[in-house]
Amino acid sequence: VNVSKTAALYKNIQQTICSTLEEADGTGKFSLDTWEKEIGSGLTRVMQNGSIIEKAGVNFSHVKGDFNENMAQLLGENATYFEATGISSILHSNNPFVPTIHMNVRHFALDNGSSWFGGGIDLTPMYVNPEEARWFHQTLKDICDKYDTSLYPVWKNWADDYFYIEHRHETRGIGGIFFDRISISTEAELEKMLNLTSDLANAYPVIYAKLMKDNGRKSFTEAEKKWQKIRRGRYVEFNLIYDRGTKFGLESEGNIESILVSLPAEVEWAYQHKPEAGSNEAQTLELLKKGIEWAKNNG
Amino acid sequence: VNVSKTAALYKNIQQTICSTLEEADGTGKFSLDTWEKEIGSGLTRVMQNGSIIEKAGVNFSHVKGDFNENMAQLLGENATYFEATGISSILHSNNPFVPTIHMNVRHFALDNGSSWFGGGIDLTPMYVNPEEARWFHQTLKDICDKYDTSLYPVWKNWADDYFYIEHRHETRGIGGIFFDRISISTEAELEKMLNLTSDLANAYPVIYAKLMKDNGRKSFTEAEKKWQKIRRGRYVEFNLIYDRGTKFGLESEGNIESILVSLPAEVEWAYQHKPEAGSNEAQTLELLKKGIEWAKNNG
Repeated sequence: VNVSKTAALYKNIQQTICSTLEEADGTGKFSLDTWEKEIGSGLTRVMQNGSIIEKAGVNFSHVKGDFNENMAQLLGENATYFEATGISSILHSNNPFVPTIHMNVRHFALDNGSSWFGGGIDLTPMYVNPEEARWFHQTLKDICDKYDTSLYPVWKNWADDYFYIEHRHETRGIGGIFFDRISISTEAELEKMLNLTSDLANAYPVIYAKLMKDNGRKSFTEAEKKWQKIRRGRYVEFNLIYDRGTKFGLESEGNIESILVSLPAEVEWAYQHKPEAGSNEAQTLELLKKGIEWAKNNG
Repeated sequence: VNVSKTAALYKNIQQTICSTLEEADGTGKFSLDTWEKEIGSGLTRVMQNGSIIEKAGVNFSHVKGDFNENMAQLLGENATYFEATGISSILHSNNPFVPTIHMNVRHFALDNGSSWFGGGIDLTPMYVNPEEARWFHQTLKDICDKYDTSLYPVWKNWADDYFYIEHRHETRGIGGIFFDRISISTEAELEKMLNLTSDLANAYPVIYAKLMKDNGRKSFTEAEKKWQKIRRGRYVEFNLIYDRGTKFGLESEGNIESILVSLPAEVEWAYQHKPEAGSNEAQTLELLKKGIEWAKNNG
């Protein structure tokens, strides 16, 4: 059981993420809230009211302890001790043309010898820009392909299935990649997943900096702002009803403010809000479905 | 299996609720959206943008069908056919000094002979006014006492336990009454619960009309409006994470727009928002806990 190397690496990356985003925003600064509980420690970094970023949370944690029955049932494994570390982040912009983005990388290890990685990045535009969607998926595919060209297609579909709002029959956004329980049994496998998750976590603020640069100064109407808030309502529905990380955090009496920092600042719900046929909003809704192949197959 | 009498009564009461609220608001009007599915039919009535009421949903439904395994597990009973009817309503005001209120009455019957009522009313002030809280609870107690003085104390505690936001360690509001699986085996018991739930459902708009009259024209600051939106965030957390009615509705592929009309129009989440010690907001937080005896014991 040892995730210390990963933890040290992730903690550094958290710092890089925050400084890259501060630079891209120009105004907003991240707070530094360390927390310590019996289970371990963490560093929650939050930006509120930047010039383009409205609310950003970048959480790092490193926890360890007794492997209890709940975990055993959840993970289908027997062990007496676990250790885990990860970065989890969501960024919301005040500009409806800058998407919401989410990234998570995590390493979990048990004293029965099991050790695995999980994570992903997914994008939730309020207005889907197909060119941007293709670029986003291609960027993720390129990172995956460096390690193994069989990864992206599987992880892309996994994201489509995971980030799905069942009761709305729509995806949360345009997806991305999602993976879990990627087992590590050799030093080489550990290196590979350490590097791959680091590449993803490092690419994350760079991806967002480009989205901010391209869209963050675009002017928008009140109607477009309202649409953004309504789409954020869907994001809240996903996070509170389906997201396993959020559920696990709430049930395990985690650090509530760190867990729910993922929720957007301003949100709206409107009864039977339906965009006009042919509008930009209606076009976006049509693209919120599984199975769209945004990346080029021939990389 | 017969809830037709209840359904006819409840449908009339829905009409009364809406007209009483329209009169109290003066401006807003309820829409009339009937829906029909294989499982049955309903009438969803929604007011948006009244002068005091910002968003109100008053749902009536009457459903019947095969009693499936999910229901059997959920209810711990065996049967082949069920019938159910109910009114479910939530009202949100644009004025932070007018509380949010919720009411539900329902009658469920199975072809194995089982038949029961459930329901309740609970109040969620953004600013708890103790005098108003006492009046609200006393009003509910008076209705219950007409039928049986042992009901209010039990149903009041039931509401404290049900409307509890576990991960925040706070109640949703100042509670009210909540009851479920109140079994009916004689005609007299049926009459009693029909009358009791009708009294509650009829009192509901009258209670709210008074709260609107007393508070709906009060002026408020931007900070008070922001506090209202943050408290509404807690309401959303409760409804999406804990509320059984919402969960059941989402899982059974119910009428999504009718189910989620309960969510407030404008909501905010702020990281680590803590009211100043001694402020009105802090005083309210101190009253969001179980076990406060608002009604007089000697009624």
